[in-house]
Amino acid sequence: MASKAKIAILGASGYTGSELVRLLLRHPRVAISVLTADRKAGQSMASVFPQFAPFDLPDLVSIESVDWAKADIDLVFCALPHGTTQTVIADILAKRPDIKIVDLSADFRLADGEAYAYWYGHAHQAPELQAEAVYGMVELHRKDIKKARLVANPGCYTTGAILPVVPLLKKKVIQPDGIVVDSKSGVSGAGRGAKEANLFTEVSEGFHAYGVGHHRHVAELDQEYAKAVGRAVVPSFTPHLVPMNRGILSTIYVTLRKGKTVEDIHAALVAAYGKEPFVHVLPLGQYPQTRHVRGSNMVMIGVVKDRPEGRAIVISALDNLVKGASGQAVQNMNIVLGFPETTGLEQIALFP
Amino acid sequence: MASKAKIAILGASGYTGSELVRLLLRHPRVAISVLTADRKAGQSMASVFPQFAPFDLPDLVSIESVDWAKADIDLVFCALPHGTTQTVIADILAKRPDIKIVDLSADFRLADGEAYAYWYGHAHQAPELQAEAVYGMVELHRKDIKKARLVANPGCYTTGAILPVVPLLKKKVIQPDGIVVDSKSGVSGAGRGAKEANLFTEVSEGFHAYGVGHHRHVAELDQEYAKAVGRAVVPSFTPHLVPMNRGILSTIYVTLRKGKTVEDIHAALVAAYGKEPFVHVLPLGQYPQTRHVRGSNMVMIGVVKDRPEGRAIVISALDNLVKGASGQAVQNMNIVLGFPETTGLEQIALFP
Amino acid sequence: MASKAKIAILGASGYTGSELVRLLLRHPRVAISVLTADRKAGQSMASVFPQFAPFDLPDLVSIESVDWAKADIDLVFCALPHGTTQTVIADILAKRPDIKIVDLSADFRLADGEAYAYWYGHAHQAPELQAEAVYGMVELHRKDIKKARLVANPGCYTTGAILPVVPLLKKKVIQPDGIVVDSKSGVSGAGRGAKEANLFTEVSEGFHAYGVGHHRHVAELDQEYAKAVGRAVVPSFTPHLVPMNRGILSTIYVTLRKGKTVEDIHAALVAAYGKEPFVHVLPLGQYPQTRHVRGSNMVMIGVVKDRPEGRAIVISALDNLVKGASGQAVQNMNIVLGFPETTGLEQIALFP
Amino acid sequence: MASKAKIAILGASGYTGSELVRLLLRHPRVAISVLTADRKAGQSMASVFPQFAPFDLPDLVSIESVDWAKADIDLVFCALPHGTTQTVIADILAKRPDIKIVDLSADFRLADGEAYAYWYGHAHQAPELQAEAVYGMVELHRKDIKKARLVANPGCYTTGAILPVVPLLKKKVIQPDGIVVDSKSGVSGAGRGAKEANLFTEVSEGFHAYGVGHHRHVAELDQEYAKAVGRAVVPSFTPHLVPMNRGILSTIYVTLRKGKTVEDIHAALVAAYGKEPFVHVLPLGQYPQTRHVRGSNMVMIGVVKDRPEGRAIVISALDNLVKGASGQAVQNMNIVLGFPETTGLEQIALFP
Repeated sequence: MASKAKIAILGASGYTGSELVRLLLRHPRVAISVLTADRKAGQSMASVFPQFAPFDLPDLVSIESVDWAKADIDLVFCALPHGTTQTVIADILAKRPDIKIVDLSADFRLADGEAYAYWYGHAHQAPELQAEAVYGMVELHRKDIKKARLVANPGCYTTGAILPVVPLLKKKVIQPDGIVVDSKSGVSGAGRGAKEANLFTEVSEGFHAYGVGHHRHVAELDQEYAKAVGRAVVPSFTPHLVPMNRGILSTIYVTLRKGKTVEDIHAALVAAYGKEPFVHVLPLGQYPQTRHVRGSNMVMIGVVKDRPEGRAIVISALDNLVKGASGQAVQNMNIVLGFPETTGLEQIALFP
Repeated sequence: MASKAKIAILGASGYTGSELVRLLLRHPRVAISVLTADRKAGQSMASVFPQFAPFDLPDLVSIESVDWAKADIDLVFCALPHGTTQTVIADILAKRPDIKIVDLSADFRLADGEAYAYWYGHAHQAPELQAEAVYGMVELHRKDIKKARLVANPGCYTTGAILPVVPLLKKKVIQPDGIVVDSKSGVSGAGRGAKEANLFTEVSEGFHAYGVGHHRHVAELDQEYAKAVGRAVVPSFTPHLVPMNRGILSTIYVTLRKGKTVEDIHAALVAAYGKEPFVHVLPLGQYPQTRHVRGSNMVMIGVVKDRPEGRAIVISALDNLVKGASGQAVQNMNIVLGFPETTGLEQIALFP
Repeated sequence: MASKAKIAILGASGYTGSELVRLLLRHPRVAISVLTADRKAGQSMASVFPQFAPFDLPDLVSIESVDWAKADIDLVFCALPHGTTQTVIADILAKRPDIKIVDLSADFRLADGEAYAYWYGHAHQAPELQAEAVYGMVELHRKDIKKARLVANPGCYTTGAILPVVPLLKKKVIQPDGIVVDSKSGVSGAGRGAKEANLFTEVSEGFHAYGVGHHRHVAELDQEYAKAVGRAVVPSFTPHLVPMNRGILSTIYVTLRKGKTVEDIHAALVAAYGKEPFVHVLPLGQYPQTRHVRGSNMVMIGVVKDRPEGRAIVISALDNLVKGASGQAVQNMNIVLGFPETTGLEQIALFP
Repeated sequence: MASKAKIAILGASGYTGSELVRLLLRHPRVAISVLTADRKAGQSMASVFPQFAPFDLPDLVSIESVDWAKADIDLVFCALPHGTTQTVIADILAKRPDIKIVDLSADFRLADGEAYAYWYGHAHQAPELQAEAVYGMVELHRKDIKKARLVANPGCYTTGAILPVVPLLKKKVIQPDGIVVDSKSGVSGAGRGAKEANLFTEVSEGFHAYGVGHHRHVAELDQEYAKAVGRAVVPSFTPHLVPMNRGILSTIYVTLRKGKTVEDIHAALVAAYGKEPFVHVLPLGQYPQTRHVRGSNMVMIGVVKDRPEGRAIVISALDNLVKGASGQAVQNMNIVLGFPETTGLEQIALFP
């Protein structure tokens, strides 16, 4: 490609937005052309995220100020709150059907209108686009993503819960029922909104669960597990908040099918991901830590035999802002725009 | 009691030792007479733990330097590593059968010699004392503790996993099989030993599981769950390390017996602990955070309905150094010495 | 006193408010009668601060709902934002001149009306009360506090910067000019307001200065240093934010007067504070850490010779919510109400 | 260069070693050929630093096992403890005078033998090399580095204290006496050694100074400040430990020369560093935070007017493991080997 692809980032004043900027500033095939942030429109990116002070970036503008019909934009990353996203994207694609979109919100992740209405409390505002959108879990749906115009980037929790489990369901190594996903996330997953619950003083030196029994992200697990099995599956899922910035660790308790072993689990994961650049399956019996994927697009997965007969524990670790959000979004962009999939995503984890 | 009880703390240079000192310095019925720390013998307590600089305390001595036969000691807290503890205690009681002992190590927690040998890799060195020792989970074994000479103070993880589950097993509200205890602990539970794995740089900004599938503390769960049910029980148990100093949160996944409901779980816990000063059962649907019990002897327990039919989640929170170790040890001391059980333990949680 | 003193806490939903509740719930001479919190009026204290769930406390009410003329209240702690505080207190004292007040805001700390107007940008609304108020730095102004009706509780930074320096100025050991106070505070000093800058993600894993060259708290230093010297003094003062909940460490660079030594500095501090229950001067050459005063009302002070000729470094550590706010406020209450000064403040630091 | 330069890293099991690996694995002009770690010789890099599990790296070997005379090595990074380093390097250069060395220890930073002996307590073991070594503060000594065989990479504290001050001394904007450097560092600067003082529990939720009045790193300040002024200079320097992994913030108090202003300070820094790729001078009145340079090779510098007449505050922020150690070492390597100076160092700060 002679010229660079022109990129717009909607919602650049949030953490997934700044993470996209961090990755794309060093991506050799793209140029950041538009950055929006409604409440901070008019400000420089450096005033909102001082780490970008040394670099040239466009100032923040409001979404309304962008003339989509004429904009020289090849691909839009949409890092807006769920709910408003669907109308924004519908508007953009109405004016410019040729633009590609990678959406980091939850708006297009559920393919089923009823499931969406159940979890989000209202009918979807862009049902045709909901039908068109491709669920961007790259390692599972790469072929569909290549042809997609609108990619629904997966959630951070769900990436860590779907990748280690779906191959086990597909290969019929584990039972679909009774799966327990106990997840622990860093605080950046909660975004940059000024909420009392996310103050340093409320989060540090403590640990707690939230959304117990009814967290929305579980809807993605239901969808992808069901696809793998061919019938409805209802896993247990509990998210917890860890006093750290980045990282999700999911401890997943599964029951083996009769005659299957933990070695079969491990083999199924190696078979699925052995050649993937961003999924690393550890040797059987080893398991990952979030700090060893911090800042990188890598998911690490481990498998251990559990004490009760016929039970196993699968543990995954990822960086919620990279593979769990903006890194996977760039990975999707690379596929959609025909770049080598790892371009701009080679950064190695920052530890300590 | 006209005069104060004389107390010795063995292993005062570790965190459970210093926590005992913190609590006992303000306990109106006791006086700290002897503090031992083998490698730091000869030093002042202020040089080892500067928070005690303003207070009068005996200097640290070696255990060998104590003449137990003549020592004016009423009760010994033993905060030594497991393994060595059993011979130290056997020696003390041989010389002074009248001394009371509260042991914070794991040495006397397992009543069964075979279970001990299996988990610790060697035969117990003081089997008669092992038979005599009382498991000091106060709310479950208060009557036995009153008559005890040697109390085995429970482990930190196990306190948070046994208290919320045993009443449910006894009342036959939940099924004994398939229990999953997913626990998350602060770093002080690992002690003060200088290990690379516990450096700030190795622990902060990250999260991981350890001892997956074979952590020794699960032996106490096996024992107490089996007592409650009348047959062997094998729960899943996974400990994790949280980048915080204090606190353990246990997320416990249980299956209801036929015809039972989450309301029955909640009612069983309220019936068991409604009058306990150090166990607080939250209203049904609420669940605790570790920060709200930090520095206090309180355990908080919550109950929530899970998504899969017939499943529930029970969550407990405690401070691993207080109710999970030294606070519960003082509670045991109060019972053994005939003091009101809450004496010296009224401190309210420090938040933030 | 046969009955307990009745206490009102205005602003009980903030951190200094909850810290007052923590201390007063265990204070043997007082009863908490009224808790106010305007935006959270109608809620239980347990819903706002779950650590109080096990305890009986009055529900939160609005300030307006209190009928001060008839209220059975002996002393009011005022933990409201600065600015509004002065009118609230003027109103209470107009209706009930007999009530004692300990004010934790900055409103009455500056005795000089012009200084107040300069730093806060508006004329004081209650100048008579400003003239009446006593600056509640107990160890310096205990006699005046005994007779006070309205005590202005000192700021957290200023407590750690005034106590170690004023005796050195009074005894003419150091030069009044060129004092550099480099202070580092935990995040709880910023309060519980939901601001982006205080989010966990914005504070953890980083360090920064703020208010460089113009932080309001320095006005208290100006005032107390000037009192000690008898002329205007202008110290340098830079506050920094540490990713921790509690604690302030101040590194204070001073120049010795001719013929004076660091030994003279140390001797002056020992002479001033040797018998104080809440100020601990370490041996010369040792210096304190914030963690060793966490949760306690203790200030620790150390003195070290600096490399350049005739220079010394004085370091102080305190818990900003205790000796830096609510603990010192209770100390002031004890004096005002005639209780032994240490009552309810004996708690030893929580470390780790 | 057709082929890649071959690199050896001595001391690869420490944090500066792993940081070199992180940077060099993605550096397009080099290949990592040898990794040494004496106590961990024989292990894989993945077992010592699991973040490297997905990548191909040579196993760790002992230094003794390397046959320097025959080794295909172009440049050695030496990340060993001070003291032993000088004999190791002397041995390598004796066998292979053509190898280039970038030393991250303190052994060759002081050009003066007496100063070395004073601060380190013994005569230097390789005085000829000490005389030959170039102090690798790139922005000040770039020309000398280009011709160097042995580069002494500067210390982390000193990089943040020298860069913002030396131009002010050279341009005679500030007085050389009375400079106060109050520095605050993350814990990774203390290395990976298993010491009680660096345990998570000893560091988190607290703040303290150390080495007050006599920290060795100040010797580098003495040397570089004296070079700039032409006579001996004795600054005050106090290091503190912040509960975070990475970052150093230095708050530097300076006195203006007569007739000079803060604008002159700012102008001098802009003049010195306006074209530097890794030093960013903020607009006058703004100052940096460590989190905004985390993981990057950037130093940010701010200048603020202080309250006392004729005084100013200069604040610098850098990542102690990157610009304060391994990043600057790679920058030195790039210069020594003739690569573009920014190669492999373009990574943008990871925030949050």
